[in-house]
Amino acid sequence: MPAINRALPALRRIHIANTAFQQSSHVRTAARPAFAIAQQSRWQHAETTTSAAHAGADNVPQDQPDISQKKIKFTAESYPNIKRDSRFKKLDENDVKYFKELLGSESAVIDGVTRDATDDLEGFNADWMKKYRGQTRLVLKPESTEQVSKILKYCNDNLLPVNPQGGNTGLVGGSVPVFDEIVVNLSRMNKIRSFDDVSGVLVADAGVILQQADDHVAEHNHIFPLDLGAKGSCQIGGNVATNAGGLRLLRYGSMHGNILGLEAVLPDGTILDDLSKLRKNNTGYDLKQLFIGGEGTIGIITGISILCPQRSPAQNVAYFGLQSYEKVQEAFKEAKKQLSEILSAFELMDGESQQMYVKASGNKLPLENNYPFYCLIETSGSNTEHDSEKLNNFLEHVMGEEIVSDGVVAESESQIQSLWGCREGISEASQHFGGVYKYDLSIPLPRLYDLVAEARERFQNNGLMDPEDDTKPVIDVIGYGHMGDSNLHLNVCTRRYDKEVEKALEPWVYEWVAKQNGSISAEHGLGLAKKEFIGYSRSETMVKLMRQIKQLYDPNGIMNPYKYI
Amino acid sequence: MPAINRALPALRRIHIANTAFQQSSHVRTAARPAFAIAQQSRWQHAETTTSAAHAGADNVPQDQPDISQKKIKFTAESYPNIKRDSRFKKLDENDVKYFKELLGSESAVIDGVTRDATDDLEGFNADWMKKYRGQTRLVLKPESTEQVSKILKYCNDNLLPVNPQGGNTGLVGGSVPVFDEIVVNLSRMNKIRSFDDVSGVLVADAGVILQQADDHVAEHNHIFPLDLGAKGSCQIGGNVATNAGGLRLLRYGSMHGNILGLEAVLPDGTILDDLSKLRKNNTGYDLKQLFIGGEGTIGIITGISILCPQRSPAQNVAYFGLQSYEKVQEAFKEAKKQLSEILSAFELMDGESQQMYVKASGNKLPLENNYPFYCLIETSGSNTEHDSEKLNNFLEHVMGEEIVSDGVVAESESQIQSLWGCREGISEASQHFGGVYKYDLSIPLPRLYDLVAEARERFQNNGLMDPEDDTKPVIDVIGYGHMGDSNLHLNVCTRRYDKEVEKALEPWVYEWVAKQNGSISAEHGLGLAKKEFIGYSRSETMVKLMRQIKQLYDPNGIMNPYKYI
Repeated sequence: MPAINRALPALRRIHIANTAFQQSSHVRTAARPAFAIAQQSRWQHAETTTSAAHAGADNVPQDQPDISQKKIKFTAESYPNIKRDSRFKKLDENDVKYFKELLGSESAVIDGVTRDATDDLEGFNADWMKKYRGQTRLVLKPESTEQVSKILKYCNDNLLPVNPQGGNTGLVGGSVPVFDEIVVNLSRMNKIRSFDDVSGVLVADAGVILQQADDHVAEHNHIFPLDLGAKGSCQIGGNVATNAGGLRLLRYGSMHGNILGLEAVLPDGTILDDLSKLRKNNTGYDLKQLFIGGEGTIGIITGISILCPQRSPAQNVAYFGLQSYEKVQEAFKEAKKQLSEILSAFELMDGESQQMYVKASGNKLPLENNYPFYCLIETSGSNTEHDSEKLNNFLEHVMGEEIVSDGVVAESESQIQSLWGCREGISEASQHFGGVYKYDLSIPLPRLYDLVAEARERFQNNGLMDPEDDTKPVIDVIGYGHMGDSNLHLNVCTRRYDKEVEKALEPWVYEWVAKQNGSISAEHGLGLAKKEFIGYSRSETMVKLMRQIKQLYDPNGIMNPYKYI
Repeated sequence: MPAINRALPALRRIHIANTAFQQSSHVRTAARPAFAIAQQSRWQHAETTTSAAHAGADNVPQDQPDISQKKIKFTAESYPNIKRDSRFKKLDENDVKYFKELLGSESAVIDGVTRDATDDLEGFNADWMKKYRGQTRLVLKPESTEQVSKILKYCNDNLLPVNPQGGNTGLVGGSVPVFDEIVVNLSRMNKIRSFDDVSGVLVADAGVILQQADDHVAEHNHIFPLDLGAKGSCQIGGNVATNAGGLRLLRYGSMHGNILGLEAVLPDGTILDDLSKLRKNNTGYDLKQLFIGGEGTIGIITGISILCPQRSPAQNVAYFGLQSYEKVQEAFKEAKKQLSEILSAFELMDGESQQMYVKASGNKLPLENNYPFYCLIETSGSNTEHDSEKLNNFLEHVMGEEIVSDGVVAESESQIQSLWGCREGISEASQHFGGVYKYDLSIPLPRLYDLVAEARERFQNNGLMDPEDDTKPVIDVIGYGHMGDSNLHLNVCTRRYDKEVEKALEPWVYEWVAKQNGSISAEHGLGLAKKEFIGYSRSETMVKLMRQIKQLYDPNGIMNPYKYI
């Protein structure tokens, strides 16, 4: 340790990952609450509800939502200006017969053409947010890339529109049909093809559940370089198709860097066979990149090859309360500087989001007092002692400089889960009392939170919001997200979906973001929700060039129609 | 430290980055040479030649090569089966007049049409390896994206072929013309546009030299996420266009992950304005990815936006001798495991490559004895003490387990440079005695070195190789590269270029690599050298789909013709 050069009052001792915290001289401490060990009683309470909290996360619970509880409006009714493309053929018995013969299994075809299968089809027609509802009458579940190829070729030849579907955990209406598109669901393509523990390269079917993929590589001390709340339901093919960002992009980078190879089927049935396992391969245009974030509009991803980093044996999670967004920014700068290579997450939650979590989950927060802002920091490294020392130094600094007001550090795996629950539980909480308008935005850090404050003010002024009054549609406006990626989730939590609320939000939110040169879709994609608004984030030239690509690969426009661009 | 559980003979004390090495119990040490402090006399010698050694590196020296020393055969003569495309217009005085008016500056147009400018043009026609030589009669040096746009539009309208050129440090003939293509040289577009030290995002012109870009961000404690030997000459636009890999891909990942935005000009003059500074932006197809590694065949990159990580204050470099390639693999596995998040480079050099370096540079190697294999390891982290401890533990382990036979650890910045010189100096050494056939390959690790051994055997048997006999074309076969990325550089060092040598190598090398599902171009690209061989790494379907992209963006085929696919 560096020499002590001034005498200062001692901080209260705290424990991090079972290593005694050593008091240091760096700290200008005052009469404020110091980092405290999480009280056992509170933790116990939190732990009992961890799995439920964890399930919600940014997207979706582990199980299919109970759609029947609440009948959802058809998308065709909510968006009356979208008309069914009359070029598309309507499904008939011969089509169904072809697919049944092709897939050769009763369970692979859910047929609403020759019989009434409304209930069976509902889970494939409706999204998790209960906001979009299509009218498909046919769900196909191929189990091989060749079957996908034959399905698409037939659909392309016959002008039958297709809606590719993974875990159906998307938040922008991209994963469910608008009208009668055939749903091609990848859930039966769920095999791990190979994993090499020297290179860390995993090759797997697109329909493998993210959690299963991570569990598989975890057995070999590796980590899937993507993590998000919906990991128990979402599929890795869908993650790639939507270029999912998630919790650890800060550390492991984006899909564009981690995906080494793809297998995908183009609308005409061509199989793009680019399942390279090589970290470097400069042989021609990197076409697979177009499918990463292509949202199923130019083809269906059937297999992926991805680089998985070593799993870090040491992990620490800390949770702070802070007095202002300025303090949050300071804490982030210090974390980048002092935690550097071991920082694996820096998450922001405003006070409202944490209160919403408390209300919806019944859990208590880990800090005694309430704060306008909270942060969650995670470190992942190879050496427990080193990481604890780095984290201690950081904590002393941010406490000493009064950047952070209070905080706790997890001492066990279950406490880690509980702290993460406070962050990951927000998404489920946000729609717990009815519905939620979700915006997933990139905004330069200094202005990131201003949008939430201004949105809240807007609803305070227009009479649409009241936390107590059930006649008002809006309960509260909350803000949270991945600070490390300048990625804000603005959620307007409502008792019901309401056109007035939507009018107050759009295009205002998009205009606000465009003014800051931000992005109207950071990690969730365009889907149906943002199709009309791409102009706020992309120039006309870019949109024109994108249309060229769509036209090149899908000249008949059968792939995920009415969405994207 | 963990408790000592067995009594073992002590290792000799070594010093790492001025921190005394503490002996540990992990080590099963034997009567072998231990890690020694590099002897001062040897280091001093090495230091005096560092800059020369550093200059060579994987690509190119700091200054333009002295082409005149050795007249290079025209590419048109070496490749008689490539014919000039007769659709292309021949340059005339009116074209030159147009460009002179457009660029408005004498120095921006090197004109060999209206005058004899052979000498002035030679440096733009010939590559650094002295292997390719074009016959351009016009070099244009635009200073703005708008000028590039007007140049390309004019060329496209008039069917004038174009050769984009950055620092001209490529190794596959991609950066020089084949016939009379107009060279569009980016060297005057060399401004840093912005750098934000909170997000780490650098926006800069394509013609900025890599070293300058890194120096700029270094002032703000950040690092450009790419490093390669040619950094003093190569341009960042060229780095992106060729998807350069380099020394630290292991740590910072590829351009596909790090590039946040691009500005590029399409052949018809359209400016693709996608200079996003956002880490997450899921709004449509990620078109910029096609230009990363597109080698200037569908447009010219004029500006880049790139994410630069924090610069690590602590850096260590170690250099080992090992008895077999099996030991190298073991050392690599241990390094990944024990050094994990701080490992920033793991480089392989065979004994022959190090002897070639010694012969060409006059430098001595840092170890007393000769070994069949050498490795260089670099760590970069935020805490000197932690990093030294991790490195110490690793060194004790690999010594104790007899994985590594001998080694040194740099104790100063100049020693770090000297150790890197042993690796980076190989490329210059490889062509020091005449010429070199270079292969840049991805091969799964277990078989990576077999290719070098087999190639050497091939030349030992076919009578074309003798280190001493000047009548034989081949001096030696050497192997080195980025172990961390499964990236091998196979170099056949020759006294002169010779068709017999080429015949012995091709397509044998490519067939060998294809059998291992490797890549015939890991990080150097296709250029002219590998245009014919893409089929060894890509399927017919993939090549067909790539041709579609070329046709879409460059229907007249004016961009970098005769190359790539």
